[in-house]
Amino acid sequence: MGLRLSPWGTENVVEYKRLFKYFGIKPFSEVLKELSRITEPHMLMRRGVVFGHRDFDKVITALKRNEKFSILTGIMPSGRMHFGHKMVIDQVIYYQQLGAEIFIVIADAEAYAVRKLDRGEIVNLAINDYLANYLALGLSTRNLHVYFQTNYERDYYRLIQLFSRKVTMSELKAIYGEELDPGKLIAVLTQMADILHPQLESFGGFNTVLVPVGPDQDPHLRLARDVADRFSSELGLKRPASTYHKFLMGLDGGKMSSSRPESFIALTEPLESAGSKIMKSLTGGRPTAEEQRKMGGVPEKCPVFEMLTYHLVQSDEELERIYWDCKSGRMLCGECKLMAREKLLRFLEEHQEKLGRARGVASSIANIPGF
Amino acid sequence: MGLRLSPWGTENVVEYKRLFKYFGIKPFSEVLKELSRITEPHMLMRRGVVFGHRDFDKVITALKRNEKFSILTGIMPSGRMHFGHKMVIDQVIYYQQLGAEIFIVIADAEAYAVRKLDRGEIVNLAINDYLANYLALGLSTRNLHVYFQTNYERDYYRLIQLFSRKVTMSELKAIYGEELDPGKLIAVLTQMADILHPQLESFGGFNTVLVPVGPDQDPHLRLARDVADRFSSELGLKRPASTYHKFLMGLDGGKMSSSRPESFIALTEPLESAGSKIMKSLTGGRPTAEEQRKMGGVPEKCPVFEMLTYHLVQSDEELERIYWDCKSGRMLCGECKLMAREKLLRFLEEHQEKLGRARGVASSIANIPGF
Repeated sequence: MGLRLSPWGTENVVEYKRLFKYFGIKPFSEVLKELSRITEPHMLMRRGVVFGHRDFDKVITALKRNEKFSILTGIMPSGRMHFGHKMVIDQVIYYQQLGAEIFIVIADAEAYAVRKLDRGEIVNLAINDYLANYLALGLSTRNLHVYFQTNYERDYYRLIQLFSRKVTMSELKAIYGEELDPGKLIAVLTQMADILHPQLESFGGFNTVLVPVGPDQDPHLRLARDVADRFSSELGLKRPASTYHKFLMGLDGGKMSSSRPESFIALTEPLESAGSKIMKSLTGGRPTAEEQRKMGGVPEKCPVFEMLTYHLVQSDEELERIYWDCKSGRMLCGECKLMAREKLLRFLEEHQEKLGRARGVASSIANIPGF
Repeated sequence: MGLRLSPWGTENVVEYKRLFKYFGIKPFSEVLKELSRITEPHMLMRRGVVFGHRDFDKVITALKRNEKFSILTGIMPSGRMHFGHKMVIDQVIYYQQLGAEIFIVIADAEAYAVRKLDRGEIVNLAINDYLANYLALGLSTRNLHVYFQTNYERDYYRLIQLFSRKVTMSELKAIYGEELDPGKLIAVLTQMADILHPQLESFGGFNTVLVPVGPDQDPHLRLARDVADRFSSELGLKRPASTYHKFLMGLDGGKMSSSRPESFIALTEPLESAGSKIMKSLTGGRPTAEEQRKMGGVPEKCPVFEMLTYHLVQSDEELERIYWDCKSGRMLCGECKLMAREKLLRFLEEHQEKLGRARGVASSIANIPGF
């Protein structure tokens, strides 16, 4: 595990190095060995997709001492859930199976006030797409709290109000930009409450809260840490722990994004469309087959290899074999894509079979806002 | 009633005329006659202390049709409640007796985040001072909703979140000034929810909500009217009605204010201190007794006469007699003060006797925030 996979596990970390340097995020590799003494790390950790952390030691301590801990994650219901969204819930499910209490916030207030989405559509996407996908992926309803930002408990709202006393406009602008409007400001304070509320007695009094995110979310975490410090004596708040995972490359080479249909495959993608998208994907291949046989492919820059690494291949040995088959020029992109396509379709077929039931469960556990 | 008292009822209105001119507040005298056809107007209305309104016609319509309506008023628990605070609750009690449902918001979130007060002290002052005084003054617990901003229902908080989408930083700065920090911004949006939430079904679905305020609060009302317009189709919100009452002059000639102890008399003021304060009050008297006998006093500029007009004399005839006794020079300030002192002490003694029981009731009806 871990170290063995370094050839393709650590190279990509280069681009995230500035996060270590400028923002104090620490390499996840530091805590990986310690975690592996307690339990098998998740494949995204072993493969370097989860590349950084803050205070993950707290989680390790909680695991060692068999103390309760909790995970906070969010759903931003804009666009359908795709594979670029899947890494976070895979980690959440992993922690849930290790005994963590799971808090999932549906960021409907932010979706409405900042992204200006329609409230009916927000609820529909959050429940029937995101949450249903989460459940179909294996999220259990045990130790699970799903809530809408606009429909939660009063202690949560009280946090938002109290926090407003100890943040300044200028620090928020430094983090979020000059064009900070009221909707964005409320959304930021609400996120602080999302991240910190599991520590309150009325929500379980969790001393350890871990927030697994992409690095773009780190500004929220940095602010949450500062806010926790400012309310440490008044409310007894502690800094949250966080981990950082790489973005999944889109099939067109950019970031996988709902705004470019050819870049993503949704978890609800019809099989035909999914198959066609992956066959049309960019790859890390060379201009000609001859060159590729001679020089080998570049899996580090290949969206298809990323799909395999992040999602489609469970066995590290198999992934390593594919890596070297590509790197050595033994396997060309056409063959690799067909193999990836088969894995993808098998996964989607199985997943989508579970979705109907999952939608029913999702509707039954979500406390849908009244107006 | 009303017109008969014009000599001292309308002269002071001059200083508030710009509110009519620039902000569209209408003279209360316009609706006074119509109100008097339905019921006896409150003495503060008859005497021109309540001098302006917006959409008071809605209240008159509700009264005529015997439709439910509601009153929203707020407690800002900073400093003890004094006579300058009493006019608003006197009006609220009047409306309650006419059948209105009363909402009293304790602005603890604002007191904490904007005024930076201590949360324990906020709760203590709100309950044991303000609310207890309100009850001792005659506020009934029937049709009464008292809530803390930090401890209310989720639909209220949802309003705050939704409102944040449709207000801009620049309009808020135009109203509240450039140094708008996060605490103030949240407080403003919270006030919008305070003013507009009684219209929601879950709070009673009141089509008519009246907010009696001092003119310094009008910026909130203007914004609330705009916000209601912006959410008229989405949430069915309507503009609130409002009335405006004059400030009570402080005993030192300025505005009655908690920050200058000699300017105010608290409702919990020990009798000795109260008596001494009113005897030391500025008056509208002339430099010498001789001059005053010749030229008469100036009750329009006299804090003692204001105490009589706003609080201590119930009978319009008696007040008119005092007015002319002063104006004509028949009664000098010493005599007047002794008379005012006697009325004041009688009032305070009776009031403070009721306070013990009122404190018990106040504690029992207030839903005190948990942390």
